[in-house]
Amino acid sequence: MFLKNAWYVGAWDTEIGRQNLLRRTLLNEPVVFYRQEDGTPVALEDKCAHRHAPLSEGKLVGDMIQCPYHGLEYNSDGDCVRVPGQSNVPPGCRVRSYPVVERNHWIWLWMGDPALADPDDIEDFHWMDDPGWRAKGELMHLKADYKLLVENLLDLSHLSYIHATTLGTSAVAETPMSVDRSDSHVTVTRWVMDSTPPPFFEKAGGFAPDEHVDRWQHITWTPPAFVRLDVGAAKAGTGAKEGDRSQGITMRNLNAITPETDKTTHYFWAQAHDFRLDEPWITDLLVANIHEAFLEDLEIIGLQQINIDSGTTQPRIDINHDGGGLQAIRTLEAMIDAENDPGAGQTAQAAE
Amino acid sequence: MFLKNAWYVGAWDTEIGRQNLLRRTLLNEPVVFYRQEDGTPVALEDKCAHRHAPLSEGKLVGDMIQCPYHGLEYNSDGDCVRVPGQSNVPPGCRVRSYPVVERNHWIWLWMGDPALADPDDIEDFHWMDDPGWRAKGELMHLKADYKLLVENLLDLSHLSYIHATTLGTSAVAETPMSVDRSDSHVTVTRWVMDSTPPPFFEKAGGFAPDEHVDRWQHITWTPPAFVRLDVGAAKAGTGAKEGDRSQGITMRNLNAITPETDKTTHYFWAQAHDFRLDEPWITDLLVANIHEAFLEDLEIIGLQQINIDSGTTQPRIDINHDGGGLQAIRTLEAMIDAENDPGAGQTAQAAE
Amino acid sequence: MFLKNAWYVGAWDTEIGRQNLLRRTLLNEPVVFYRQEDGTPVALEDKCAHRHAPLSEGKLVGDMIQCPYHGLEYNSDGDCVRVPGQSNVPPGCRVRSYPVVERNHWIWLWMGDPALADPDDIEDFHWMDDPGWRAKGELMHLKADYKLLVENLLDLSHLSYIHATTLGTSAVAETPMSVDRSDSHVTVTRWVMDSTPPPFFEKAGGFAPDEHVDRWQHITWTPPAFVRLDVGAAKAGTGAKEGDRSQGITMRNLNAITPETDKTTHYFWAQAHDFRLDEPWITDLLVANIHEAFLEDLEIIGLQQINIDSGTTQPRIDINHDGGGLQAIRTLEAMIDAENDPGAGQTAQAAE
Repeated sequence: MFLKNAWYVGAWDTEIGRQNLLRRTLLNEPVVFYRQEDGTPVALEDKCAHRHAPLSEGKLVGDMIQCPYHGLEYNSDGDCVRVPGQSNVPPGCRVRSYPVVERNHWIWLWMGDPALADPDDIEDFHWMDDPGWRAKGELMHLKADYKLLVENLLDLSHLSYIHATTLGTSAVAETPMSVDRSDSHVTVTRWVMDSTPPPFFEKAGGFAPDEHVDRWQHITWTPPAFVRLDVGAAKAGTGAKEGDRSQGITMRNLNAITPETDKTTHYFWAQAHDFRLDEPWITDLLVANIHEAFLEDLEIIGLQQINIDSGTTQPRIDINHDGGGLQAIRTLEAMIDAENDPGAGQTAQAAE
Repeated sequence: MFLKNAWYVGAWDTEIGRQNLLRRTLLNEPVVFYRQEDGTPVALEDKCAHRHAPLSEGKLVGDMIQCPYHGLEYNSDGDCVRVPGQSNVPPGCRVRSYPVVERNHWIWLWMGDPALADPDDIEDFHWMDDPGWRAKGELMHLKADYKLLVENLLDLSHLSYIHATTLGTSAVAETPMSVDRSDSHVTVTRWVMDSTPPPFFEKAGGFAPDEHVDRWQHITWTPPAFVRLDVGAAKAGTGAKEGDRSQGITMRNLNAITPETDKTTHYFWAQAHDFRLDEPWITDLLVANIHEAFLEDLEIIGLQQINIDSGTTQPRIDINHDGGGLQAIRTLEAMIDAENDPGAGQTAQAAE
Repeated sequence: MFLKNAWYVGAWDTEIGRQNLLRRTLLNEPVVFYRQEDGTPVALEDKCAHRHAPLSEGKLVGDMIQCPYHGLEYNSDGDCVRVPGQSNVPPGCRVRSYPVVERNHWIWLWMGDPALADPDDIEDFHWMDDPGWRAKGELMHLKADYKLLVENLLDLSHLSYIHATTLGTSAVAETPMSVDRSDSHVTVTRWVMDSTPPPFFEKAGGFAPDEHVDRWQHITWTPPAFVRLDVGAAKAGTGAKEGDRSQGITMRNLNAITPETDKTTHYFWAQAHDFRLDEPWITDLLVANIHEAFLEDLEIIGLQQINIDSGTTQPRIDINHDGGGLQAIRTLEAMIDAENDPGAGQTAQAAE
């Protein structure tokens, strides 16, 4: 079960247009994306009301999308406005239209009750196109439950193992984290003090070989599956932990996770930085290193899913580092329960 | 659920012989086809009664088929007649034998109660080997429920969309059809008057460039899934609609649709024509054009099936052009219901 | 359902070590094999207790196996002994450890209650490393229920059909077998007297061209799925049946069958011989011929499984040659029933 009344990222802005109609399965539902003649993005159920052919195989006629099979045409509200061979449109002939907003280079859509869709509720990803930052990213595909990826990002102790040769150093896993939780977010904070940075930090930050740094990871989860990381490092002992980051580099790792099906996931992410903005190779260096590390994650999480699905699986044993992930998943599942049974949800909250 | 007490096409005559034993799944049942020494076709359950090995991997011993695993031999009635290492055949050692008739280049078999199999009930496809006609065809494979293909053929308004660049012109979808129904067939008729023909009609019919034609489509469905089309075109205004086809060309598009499984289908078809019989390139031209168009159909219908099976699927909305398809599917489903519960079927008919 | 309280072969001794951790699914459970620093083999559940990642993707740290995801370490008893970032190990943090014995070049493991595991119960395969014999074998994979392979080996009449051009001669299937059964084994015996041997028998045994032999097959099944064959041939009429094998050759075909899943199987086998021990090409000749024949078996049994799973499958018809297989499968199923419901098992035995 998914949280329906929520904004999700459905596509990168560059993925949709007027030529290739984009079909993408989101929360088990097939969706077609296109742009109207004025550029406004549209997201419709990709299933003609007549005989259920995929509209994404059809073509655009002005702002209408025409079914490839028998030529029915739909407007951006999902209403059928033309049926070949007859002058009237049958009552109820429509497909679902999803509220859509284009923001921060992503196409956001609302998968639940359209009456509840408020663009003000879209998560803040201003680093994607803030002039004070440079950002770049991509879409990856995960063969696993999206919640496994949320947990992955909320416990970076895995850097010491999965990413031992890329992002990690053994010091990360040995450093405890602190967890802060509210109704609407979970934040995990870890400071790895006076230790060696990973190689690409050294290169991007201009640290001397073997120079020690103070490294921070502030990870914020918001529902259903957004994880924003404030990460960076400064020369050891120059006061970064007290707020002076002038001797270091600051980045944002920005993750928007959208379920495709129960056990597959669309993974939208970008890396932003606020230093050396006139050196594009820095952005490319960061993205290339994160890309390589994320491939390592997706492989392990895919195997984790296969393992969960095979043989007998015992309940999970939790360790200290799981604090953030447990809080996030518990919060998310309570929201999903409340959405599916509003009455019961309130009682449960009162009883807590 | 399928209609069992019916003749289906199981193979082309050229597909079966004495060397390669043909295994083919029909209505979810594996069947093996071969010919006896005198050429008579045989269709048996492709599953040895002993340990269920496929007989089609074995070989012929005279008119017997020998199991590849332990050598049991069956005659054309499906009775085991020899068990190696013992002199008696155990009681009940037999496989199912299907009534078979070779007619009009197709191998027909009866999938239900053999006592009800009457060769006189085989559908008329005499155009396949009538000296007044030339015909040619093939077997295609569809990844979808066979009923979706029946519907496809009963509403040719899709020619204007799927086959916009091959068989179709936009005029087709805009022209209404008339539907005629009896207990045993549905006929859909459409006349597209005074319009441009598709390119291969022009070539085969010798029409002048840009010459207008009167084009007809008489489509007859008979259960379970045979669709015969009387199609053609004559110079506009030369009286074709009134019966004078002398200024035009007449063809038969002949379709025998056999379910393979619940969601896959064997599609046997041929195209026949009664003009320019001494010019084989005409037949080849017609078949090549229909082949290309049918590939377009199979692709869309395959996607239609995927879409029906994914996400939430609302009830279908019917339009005017669906009249023929709705009547056919309703008739077929009533026949299947009656076959599975004869008593209930009669009551339902009485109550209608 | 499988017999759990039993020793199974999980791997060849050469398959496991300290570099590539071997993941193998056995009886539907993922297992990881490795060796401790002193060479002792270990078999653990391949699923970290924490977040269920496969340990086989991790690495060895001394005698511990380290999870690839968050670095938890387990000892050979399956107990977690280290959790990065904390000083205590949470209670219950362990994976299943399987009793393991390395014997006769195979790694044996016990899949049921460890308290019942007695190495003395391991089946005798001493021919694998007895100085009086030479043996060689391999691991093959079958896409079918392991019981179908047990049946295959207990009725060699299939040699006349599946292996008509390799191991078989038509005389085999025509010769009756005798069956001997106890609570713990089934033995099938067949003597094919005064007939031509298959080509590789001729070569290995040094028989003259067209010389006739007396050929024996003593096949012993023990539960759950071990089949040992004492096979060979001697010059016809030289008294082999009475016990004098001096004019012939004797081999052991040794089969250890381990279910992978309900419908896939690991097939460990070897061929041993006690003659011409200083001529390694003899061993290679035997293994190459058996390998080719077993490929033929696996193909037919795979198709048999597909057939059983498709369409309507009637109950099996038994023939005389099935005696051994029927006794073995009946014995095995009674053992599985008794294991799953010990009380009911006793009642059933009393009532028999």
